[in-house]
Amino acid sequence: MNSSMKRNIVLDHGTGAKLSRELVDFIVDILGDVYIGEMEDSALLSLPNARIAMTTDSFVVDPLIFGNGDIGKIAVCGTVNDLAVVGATPQYLTLAFIIETGLPFSDLERVLVSIRDTAREADIKIVAGDTKVVNQGEADKLFINTTGVGYFPREPLRMKHVRVGDHILLSGPIGNHAVHLLSIREGLGFESRVLSDCAPLNHMIAALLDGKAGWGIHSIRDVTRGGLAAVMQEYSRVGPFHMALDQARLPIQHETAMACDMLGIDPIDLANEGCLCLFVAPDYADLALDLLRRHAPGTGAVDIGKVLSSDTAQVRLKFPGGHVKRLEELEGAVLPRLC
Amino acid sequence: MNSSMKRNIVLDHGTGAKLSRELVDFIVDILGDVYIGEMEDSALLSLPNARIAMTTDSFVVDPLIFGNGDIGKIAVCGTVNDLAVVGATPQYLTLAFIIETGLPFSDLERVLVSIRDTAREADIKIVAGDTKVVNQGEADKLFINTTGVGYFPREPLRMKHVRVGDHILLSGPIGNHAVHLLSIREGLGFESRVLSDCAPLNHMIAALLDGKAGWGIHSIRDVTRGGLAAVMQEYSRVGPFHMALDQARLPIQHETAMACDMLGIDPIDLANEGCLCLFVAPDYADLALDLLRRHAPGTGAVDIGKVLSSDTAQVRLKFPGGHVKRLEELEGAVLPRLC
Repeated sequence: MNSSMKRNIVLDHGTGAKLSRELVDFIVDILGDVYIGEMEDSALLSLPNARIAMTTDSFVVDPLIFGNGDIGKIAVCGTVNDLAVVGATPQYLTLAFIIETGLPFSDLERVLVSIRDTAREADIKIVAGDTKVVNQGEADKLFINTTGVGYFPREPLRMKHVRVGDHILLSGPIGNHAVHLLSIREGLGFESRVLSDCAPLNHMIAALLDGKAGWGIHSIRDVTRGGLAAVMQEYSRVGPFHMALDQARLPIQHETAMACDMLGIDPIDLANEGCLCLFVAPDYADLALDLLRRHAPGTGAVDIGKVLSSDTAQVRLKFPGGHVKRLEELEGAVLPRLC
Repeated sequence: MNSSMKRNIVLDHGTGAKLSRELVDFIVDILGDVYIGEMEDSALLSLPNARIAMTTDSFVVDPLIFGNGDIGKIAVCGTVNDLAVVGATPQYLTLAFIIETGLPFSDLERVLVSIRDTAREADIKIVAGDTKVVNQGEADKLFINTTGVGYFPREPLRMKHVRVGDHILLSGPIGNHAVHLLSIREGLGFESRVLSDCAPLNHMIAALLDGKAGWGIHSIRDVTRGGLAAVMQEYSRVGPFHMALDQARLPIQHETAMACDMLGIDPIDLANEGCLCLFVAPDYADLALDLLRRHAPGTGAVDIGKVLSSDTAQVRLKFPGGHVKRLEELEGAVLPRLC
């Protein structure tokens, strides 16, 4: 760190003069070869072809740093996964920070190391950045925006490709990310037993789509804010379809279920950061499951239900005894700042 | 506005359930045909070719809404201009909001209308978006990130193309944007006489680059945060060069000079949102000036100095009496949140 660099972020780190430049140097030094920008007003890039995917996400995660990750890891994974689920290969990422005065450089460094390592793992390059600094009380420590561009080495996947009869697969347990963060925020003591699932899923998705199972995969969705319930509601409206889920097959870690019981919340509504929902033609469902289970983030993959024909959009959950509950769309989930 | 939409933003507008969806519908309705996203995790797009420019910027403007513009207009212009100055044609824009609970929908609507109108003027499409909502005191009303992609219909312009002998042109007066916002913030009463220069400059830049003057234009920079001084310092380090500026030729509106005197600040350090600095080969400087002056944002264009050879990076300002002052890089400018 440059000797003139203060221990904490000050307002002058954002005013476009010398301290701003030193902050940018600090960031670029840590990112290393993951950053390929050239400090022009825009990055000059080339793509393998001219059909692209583009997505943006701002991250307001609280706490910034948690048990097995931090806002930086989430910011890279979130955007990488949004590109990958439509069938694109994540290629370029931009990185924009809004920093509250007083943020320790040590926290910023931790987040940057995480961004670098996750970008390497996901094989994506950071091409442009921005830093803004605001007074204390005008932001909460650090907000990050990542915007990604990918190219299509194959046909894009679309929501509208989902068909009646498709199996609904989940790549892993739900609710863990939210419970981990809530536990830290509320001092519940669950956080060492329930870890965030945050992970870049693009390599697993590419393996799926490029293998034989790829022929039967109609659509993939990253199960984040709003949880599995929101994904089901959204897809049910596309058909309209009747989404028929088997409650007993929902992959929920024991400790997560316990925590949710205690808090009066349902894991089906909770945000994840490394969980996919896949809509797969019946003949390919087992093949897709096998392939998912060969990848670390997919070892817990399960088949949770089916897409049925319907005149109206509906999501129904069948319980072990045979009882069926219709899930209504929630007004809100009152669990902010998990992503 | 949907009848169930609250008058102000509440936390549930950000939790991924029904109110989130209604907020997104509210945004998309106002943006109209400027928004071409499809509500997948990523937008699926095509470009005229595979050589692209990409840039990102977060905007933390205070006040949100000012005399002749608002944060929405700045957010579109800032990113459009960053793409245009490297010679790219702005094509796609993403839009991400971080909203503080309590923001009136009327303010959000005003900002969205401005985004729509400015995107139309700049001929850029909004392809993807994101909304996050945080508690009161965790952000200041509204922060916006815009990230842009453009394609190159011509060779990119680079900082390193600047040559000794180049004339330094400014497309218009400096300091007005900062003085306008400061006047509102501090209640100084200047704001009706000094307006923000915020404008999309891509059409003017394209006309310049595609005309005969284009042959002599080596580099263009959007003069924003840090002002003309920061741009001069940055380019002086590229050569290294001696940037020789003529103080008497700096375009500064009378009221802006008065306000700056009163506040003890120098317009050369102040942020602008619609002002270009151009580095032009001597034989093309007059041609470029003529062309700039034919466009509304360039009517006040002037030639302010020259790039001289030097062993060290230096920026010098010659005053009318012959006195020359060397400009040192500022540590910080202590004028936050103008962009």
